[in-house]
Amino acid sequence: MKALFNPSSVAVIGASDNPGKLGFHVMKSLTGGGYAGRIIPVNPGATRIMGLKASSSVSVCEGEIDLAIVVVPAKRVPAVFRECAAKGVRGIVLITAGFKEIDDPGGADLHKEIADIANEANIPVIGPNTFGMINLHADLNASFTPEFSRLQKGTITLVSQSGGISHLLGFMAMRMGIGFRMIVGLGNRLNVDFAQMVDFLADDPDTKVVVLYIEGIDAARALTDTARKLRGRKPIIAYKTGSGQVGDAASRSHTGSMAGSHKIYTGSFTQAGILHIDSTETLLDTAKALSASPVPDGPGVAVLSGQAGPSMAACDVCEAEGLKIVRFTDITQETINDLLPPLALRSNPVDMGPAWYDASAIKGIIQTVMDDDNVNGILLLMMFASANRDALGGITDLLKAWGQQKPLISCILAPPGIWDDQVKDLELSGALVNYPTPERAAKVMANLWKYGKIRSTQ
Amino acid sequence: MKALFNPSSVAVIGASDNPGKLGFHVMKSLTGGGYAGRIIPVNPGATRIMGLKASSSVSVCEGEIDLAIVVVPAKRVPAVFRECAAKGVRGIVLITAGFKEIDDPGGADLHKEIADIANEANIPVIGPNTFGMINLHADLNASFTPEFSRLQKGTITLVSQSGGISHLLGFMAMRMGIGFRMIVGLGNRLNVDFAQMVDFLADDPDTKVVVLYIEGIDAARALTDTARKLRGRKPIIAYKTGSGQVGDAASRSHTGSMAGSHKIYTGSFTQAGILHIDSTETLLDTAKALSASPVPDGPGVAVLSGQAGPSMAACDVCEAEGLKIVRFTDITQETINDLLPPLALRSNPVDMGPAWYDASAIKGIIQTVMDDDNVNGILLLMMFASANRDALGGITDLLKAWGQQKPLISCILAPPGIWDDQVKDLELSGALVNYPTPERAAKVMANLWKYGKIRSTQ
Repeated sequence: MKALFNPSSVAVIGASDNPGKLGFHVMKSLTGGGYAGRIIPVNPGATRIMGLKASSSVSVCEGEIDLAIVVVPAKRVPAVFRECAAKGVRGIVLITAGFKEIDDPGGADLHKEIADIANEANIPVIGPNTFGMINLHADLNASFTPEFSRLQKGTITLVSQSGGISHLLGFMAMRMGIGFRMIVGLGNRLNVDFAQMVDFLADDPDTKVVVLYIEGIDAARALTDTARKLRGRKPIIAYKTGSGQVGDAASRSHTGSMAGSHKIYTGSFTQAGILHIDSTETLLDTAKALSASPVPDGPGVAVLSGQAGPSMAACDVCEAEGLKIVRFTDITQETINDLLPPLALRSNPVDMGPAWYDASAIKGIIQTVMDDDNVNGILLLMMFASANRDALGGITDLLKAWGQQKPLISCILAPPGIWDDQVKDLELSGALVNYPTPERAAKVMANLWKYGKIRSTQ
Repeated sequence: MKALFNPSSVAVIGASDNPGKLGFHVMKSLTGGGYAGRIIPVNPGATRIMGLKASSSVSVCEGEIDLAIVVVPAKRVPAVFRECAAKGVRGIVLITAGFKEIDDPGGADLHKEIADIANEANIPVIGPNTFGMINLHADLNASFTPEFSRLQKGTITLVSQSGGISHLLGFMAMRMGIGFRMIVGLGNRLNVDFAQMVDFLADDPDTKVVVLYIEGIDAARALTDTARKLRGRKPIIAYKTGSGQVGDAASRSHTGSMAGSHKIYTGSFTQAGILHIDSTETLLDTAKALSASPVPDGPGVAVLSGQAGPSMAACDVCEAEGLKIVRFTDITQETINDLLPPLALRSNPVDMGPAWYDASAIKGIIQTVMDDDNVNGILLLMMFASANRDALGGITDLLKAWGQQKPLISCILAPPGIWDDQVKDLELSGALVNYPTPERAAKVMANLWKYGKIRSTQ
C-alpha cells in the first residue's frame, strides 16, 4: 500500500492529449500537481503526450512502475491488469467504470476476472469506478480532477465511497482553508475497502484524523473490527448516507452494495469507536478540530463571549449535545466579578462585552477561566464591534502562549478583511480552531468530547 | 414608525469626535453610510463634530428633527426625552444601556420614567440597550457599527433582541452575499416590541421576509396575535434561543425578560404561522430562499444531481424533514430513460453524471422534470469536475427562461473562481437559490414547504 500512495513512478494507461478523454485530465492532474517522480504516459497510438515520451504498453516501459493509473475501457482492463502483474506494478488506481455496478451480468464477470488477477499478483487496487486519489504530502494528484492539486496540505485523510462527496468536501475545504493528507475515492472496492484503508492509515504518521464517507458496504464487519483495534489511537469519524428509504435504495443501485439498515450501521460504528456524523458540514468541521485541537478530558465547557446572544445560541447546542456549562470554582468567579460590572452575565456564559475597552480585564477573565479545573474546554465567541476592534490583538499573545492546553474552539467573526488574517494566524499557531457560527463551534466541542468518551472507554 | 425608519433629518444626541465614545461611532455610521438627509450632531461642548455644525441641545436645533439617536448616559436620558418630546421628534433610537436590565432598582424606575415620556408624546423608541438599527433602502445606518453600511440591499428585515446576533447575522450575510432591507436591534423594548415591528413590517413593501431573533419576551401573546393576522401574507421566521436551562437563565438575566418554556414559545409560534428555525445558519439560509424563491405547492421534490453521493445526502435530509422524493410521471421517466444509460440512477434522484458531455441530454432531463406535475420543487446538485466544466453554461439559458416557476434550490460548487460568477449571475436573475452543501439546500427546500403548509392553512 505504501508504494501505491507514495510511488516513485506512475504510468497512466490510457493517457491522452484529447481534452474529451479522462486520460487527458489524469495527465493534467499528475503533471500540474508538482509530482516529482517519473510520469509515463501509456498509449499505443502516441509517441508523446503533454510533452512526455509515451510508451505503447506497460510491458515495454523502461524501468519499474510503482503505480499504474488505468483509464482504458472496461473490456480492455483484464489485459492491462495482466500486463501490470507481469511488469511488477505495485499498485493500481482503476478509474474506469462499467464493472459490478452495471445491470449487465458481464460487468460482474469482468469485476471477478480483474479481482482474481490483482489478488494473485498481490496488487492493491483503488477502484474501479473512482475519480482517483490524491496524496498531498507527495504532491501526487492521481485523479481526473486537476483542481484537487489546489488543496492545502494537512493531516486529515478522507476515504470516500463517492466521487461526488469527495469533490464536495474538497471544494468546501478549499473555501474553509482546511488541508488534507490524502483523499482516496474507493469506488467499487476491488480489493481495497474501508477496512484495508483504516488499517493502513492507522500506521500513517501523516494522518491524524481518518474521515470516512460511506454509502453502503458489504464488509461492514471488517471495518468495525479494524476500527475497534484502532480505538483510542487515532480518531475515525464517519458520515453514512442512506438513512432514508430513497437514499438507501439509490445507494444499493449506485454502488452495487447490499442494503443495510442505517441504524444498524451507525450503532455498530459507535461500538467500534467510530464517531458518527450527520452532515458534510459537520464532518469537515469536526475533522478540522480533531486535527488541530486536543480532546477534552470531560464535558465541562466555559463560554466566553463578547456578546450575550451568541453565547445563548452556543449554550443551547452544548446542553443538547451532552456538554455541561460548568459552574466555575469560587476563585474564578471572584476574579471575574472583580473584572466585570454587575450588569453583565458573569457566571457562565460570561459576557465580556462591558470590558472591551479594558484589555487587561479581558485577559484576566480568559486567564482565570483557562486555569479553572472545572473547565475542560473553552468556547470563545467574539462578534466584531467598534469597541472591540483592538481586543483580538490584545489577547493574541495570551492565546498563543496557552496553546490550547485545553480545547479552545471559537467563533470570531467580523466583516470581511478586518480580523481574517489575525484569526488565520491564531489557527496556524495552534491557539484555537475557528468556526463561522456559535452553533457550529459548540457542536464541534460536543463532538470533541464524544470522541473523548470513545477514547477513554477503549 | 415610518418617520423613525425613513427620517428626513437625524440628530445624534451625544455625538462625539472621540473614538472612545459610542457617539463617535454613531456619527461615523451615519456620515459614512451614504445617508442623504440632514445630520445634526448634538453636544453641549462642541461647535463642530466630524465637520458638521453641532447644536448644544435638541431644543435649539434648527428645523424639524425626525429621528434622534441618543447615546448619553442613562441618568441624562429623561431630560433628553423631554426635550425631544417638546421639539416634536418623531422617533428615537436609544442606544444607552443601564435601565431595566441592571440589578439596581433605579434602572427600572428610569425605564418607567422615560417610557411615560415617550408614550405620552407618542414617540416610538428603539431600545434602550440596543446597537441601533439600519435601513439599507434609506442608506440609514443608525447604529454604533459603521461596518453595517457595507451590507447589501435586500428584502429581508431582521428584528433582533440581541446586538451580538445582529452582528453575527450581518457579518455572515456579508460573506454569503445576502442583502437586507433593515436590521433592527430591539434592545429592551421601551415601547417598540416584536408585535409592533411585525405589524409595521406587514405593510412595508420593501420587506418580503420578516426574520425574528428572540431570547425571551413578556409580550409573546401580542406577537403571536399580530403574526396570526399576517398569516399567509408575508413569511415570518423566528429563531428563539434559551432551549437549554443555562440559556434560559442567561436570557432572563440579560434581557430583563420573564423566563419562558422554550417549547411553549415554539408551539405558539407554529400556531401563529411563524416558522421556527433552530440555528443562525438555517435562519439566514431560509430567509434567503423565502426572499428569492416561490413557495412549493406540495412536498414533492425532484433531485437532479451531477453525482450520486450528494443526491443521497440531500434525499436523507428531504425525507427526514417531511419532503417526498416523488415518483416521476411515466412521460418524464421515459424521457430520462432515453437520455441516460442504464447504469445511471434514472428514477429520482437522477444522476446526470453520465450525460455531462451531452448538453442537450442535460437540458432534456431538466426540462422534462420542470414540466412534471408531480414535482413541486427541484434540487439541483452539481459538483465541478473536468467533464462538466461547461455544463453549467449550457443550462444557464434554460434555467433563466424558466425563472423558478417552481422553487429551484441548488448546491452548485466548484473550486474558488471557476463557477462563482455564473452562480451569482443565476441567483441575481432569479433562476435559482444556491447553498454550499446538499444538506443545507435540502433543508431550505423543506423549510419552504413548511412555510407553504403554514400559508395554505391560513
